[in-house]
Amino acid sequence: MNFVGYKCGVCGQEFSPEEIRYRCDSCNGPLLVTYDYGSLAKKVTVKSLAEKPAGVWKYRELLPVSPSTEPVSLGEGATPLHEAKTLASSIGLSNLFLKDDGRNPTGTFKDRGATVGMTVAVERGMHAVGTVSHGNMGTSMAAYAARAGQTCYILAPEYMTSARVLYLSVYGAKVIQVVGGYDSMYDESLKIAKKHGVLFINSDNPFREEGYKTIAFEIVEDLGWQVPDWVVTPASSGGLASGLGKGFEEFKELGLIPRIPKLAVVQPSDAQPIVVAFEKSAETIKRVDHEFTSIVRSLGNPYPPSGNRVLKLLQELGGTAIAVPDEETIAAQRDLARIEGIFAEPAGAITLAGLRRLIKLGKLNKDEKVVLVVSGFGFRDPGDADKLVDKSVTIDIEDLESVIATS
Amino acid sequence: MNFVGYKCGVCGQEFSPEEIRYRCDSCNGPLLVTYDYGSLAKKVTVKSLAEKPAGVWKYRELLPVSPSTEPVSLGEGATPLHEAKTLASSIGLSNLFLKDDGRNPTGTFKDRGATVGMTVAVERGMHAVGTVSHGNMGTSMAAYAARAGQTCYILAPEYMTSARVLYLSVYGAKVIQVVGGYDSMYDESLKIAKKHGVLFINSDNPFREEGYKTIAFEIVEDLGWQVPDWVVTPASSGGLASGLGKGFEEFKELGLIPRIPKLAVVQPSDAQPIVVAFEKSAETIKRVDHEFTSIVRSLGNPYPPSGNRVLKLLQELGGTAIAVPDEETIAAQRDLARIEGIFAEPAGAITLAGLRRLIKLGKLNKDEKVVLVVSGFGFRDPGDADKLVDKSVTIDIEDLESVIATS
Repeated sequence: MNFVGYKCGVCGQEFSPEEIRYRCDSCNGPLLVTYDYGSLAKKVTVKSLAEKPAGVWKYRELLPVSPSTEPVSLGEGATPLHEAKTLASSIGLSNLFLKDDGRNPTGTFKDRGATVGMTVAVERGMHAVGTVSHGNMGTSMAAYAARAGQTCYILAPEYMTSARVLYLSVYGAKVIQVVGGYDSMYDESLKIAKKHGVLFINSDNPFREEGYKTIAFEIVEDLGWQVPDWVVTPASSGGLASGLGKGFEEFKELGLIPRIPKLAVVQPSDAQPIVVAFEKSAETIKRVDHEFTSIVRSLGNPYPPSGNRVLKLLQELGGTAIAVPDEETIAAQRDLARIEGIFAEPAGAITLAGLRRLIKLGKLNKDEKVVLVVSGFGFRDPGDADKLVDKSVTIDIEDLESVIATS
Repeated sequence: MNFVGYKCGVCGQEFSPEEIRYRCDSCNGPLLVTYDYGSLAKKVTVKSLAEKPAGVWKYRELLPVSPSTEPVSLGEGATPLHEAKTLASSIGLSNLFLKDDGRNPTGTFKDRGATVGMTVAVERGMHAVGTVSHGNMGTSMAAYAARAGQTCYILAPEYMTSARVLYLSVYGAKVIQVVGGYDSMYDESLKIAKKHGVLFINSDNPFREEGYKTIAFEIVEDLGWQVPDWVVTPASSGGLASGLGKGFEEFKELGLIPRIPKLAVVQPSDAQPIVVAFEKSAETIKRVDHEFTSIVRSLGNPYPPSGNRVLKLLQELGGTAIAVPDEETIAAQRDLARIEGIFAEPAGAITLAGLRRLIKLGKLNKDEKVVLVVSGFGFRDPGDADKLVDKSVTIDIEDLESVIATS
């Protein structure tokens, strides 16, 4: 195993790798897994990567498990990077790509984190996993736990629609609806996990992040080892943005790419703690206190546990952050589907809405190469379905020809 | 282009390739595209295939478009073939694999047919496409038409739930609800198509079949060029089974495999025209006249247009056909999700239910190598959701530890 330790994503403090760790003892920042990049640089090369089958486990030298461990896999990663020519010209860009990560096994980028987290749990002889989630992450962990034959606990809010409960329990997870907010569940779950040998793989768990970073690896490889100028990503806990940043940083550290793209983080106007802090050049985020009503449910995190880490990344890498109202996210969802044939959930389409705002604000140059991370599949969570649909017509069969001839 | 003509899948009559054709002038059987296999055998080899990126278009020498045509693609095919060890041992098999075709762009195997059909339409300068569908095929064609910037007409039944209308129109297709049955829409659409330059890509259109056959190619390649003993497939129009048979036959014709697996076709008890005809050793299927109430909606075809072709295939290749009641399909759906982490729509899970019946009937040997085609993703159409879900518990946060410690 090449995993040599943990490093806090905020204050940089280092920890030894033996124990399962989640957060920094000093500043409570999210921990990140570190490797011996010097020795890895000889093993992980453009040539060595070209010879391996695509997917998250292509990068196993850069994942925190031993080479002999069989991954718990459902065939995650290796999602398409589509060039979006028509959409690009409609917004005046010359180079626009969509990283269609809704093409993962349960319809979301979360599967990349779940495969790594679940494999770590099996390797370390743990008997169960868990997560705090009312959405995609819970479903994803449940699927991987089923594949591994392990118990999965999902801690979910007290109030959920029956459709949500279906999604969470279809893979046989134990769904526990808890009276109490997201952060108290997050903190409590980590304490209990340690004590009972359960690996709790919450939003920005260090092993989960290792899966997310493979999106950055794939983007670079699919662009023929070119580095895009911008990568636009949604942010809820901040885990996805954090993982993307780590992926690009590692490829640079290994000498595989000469520079790191700028990250643009997008949040719904209704829940924008990272955007607010970024605009104030603050070092720490402040909790959002109002009730969340946006249709972009999966981005409704009032106090992102990787928020401070993302702020630091944006400041270091010259990125930006932008909030968009729901109407613009719905318009983006419609356009992705109708112009490019990609049906994204609202959280996946929000990156297009964010990109449009950034162009209007002159924050990015029209000849820059842009990749939008489309993080989830629309059939999992369509959002405001009524706004995505046009009225159909009803006719008699003998009128069919005239309808087709004239429309 | 290697496309040299059409051949009727039932009576064998041949037609020249210039015109777009759908069905046989003599017997109304579905037409299949033919190639010059003699010259292709030199070009399509194990080695040539190993060098190409995975997906439907890997097999473009065996697809009916010119080599210079840019495919209309959303990254279809290259779906995982999972070994299902736990499930296999639970039913006493030694070699069971799941071809997870719900991993296609719109969550269904139909995308393999849509990419080929849409590319043919663009290559031939047609301005619109259409399909008769109230489900997966309509959604799939709509996505590919959006990607190509073309109009898509979807002819659908008069009565549909609003969820269905969402699925059909989210990609911007023109949904036309027609008063009149499926077969009259099928026949009428082909007539209108010819007249108005619209390519109607119905369930068993010859170009669509060319996409489906790539499932057979991928199964063989993913098994390291071994031929399974059985491939179990759902059947509605019969198009999928027909395409699978064609794929294996072509690989044999090209000298790539020594034999063809047996096909087992599964239908819901409520709509089993192919099974009934097969059991009577009939050469033609008879229309099912009762109203269809099964939850396996996408297999509710009363008079499969490729039914006679499938009967012929089963008789020639030594296959079989089996019907299963909905309860067994629901149990199969639960087991695929909970044992292997694959959430299939009812039509995708029915193959496991069929397999279990075939084992009980002694129709297949327990040491035979079996591949189940899991044709669609459960988040597209969960079926009877209530039966897939267990009751969740609601607790106070201070009771969390005791719940985890004791469960």
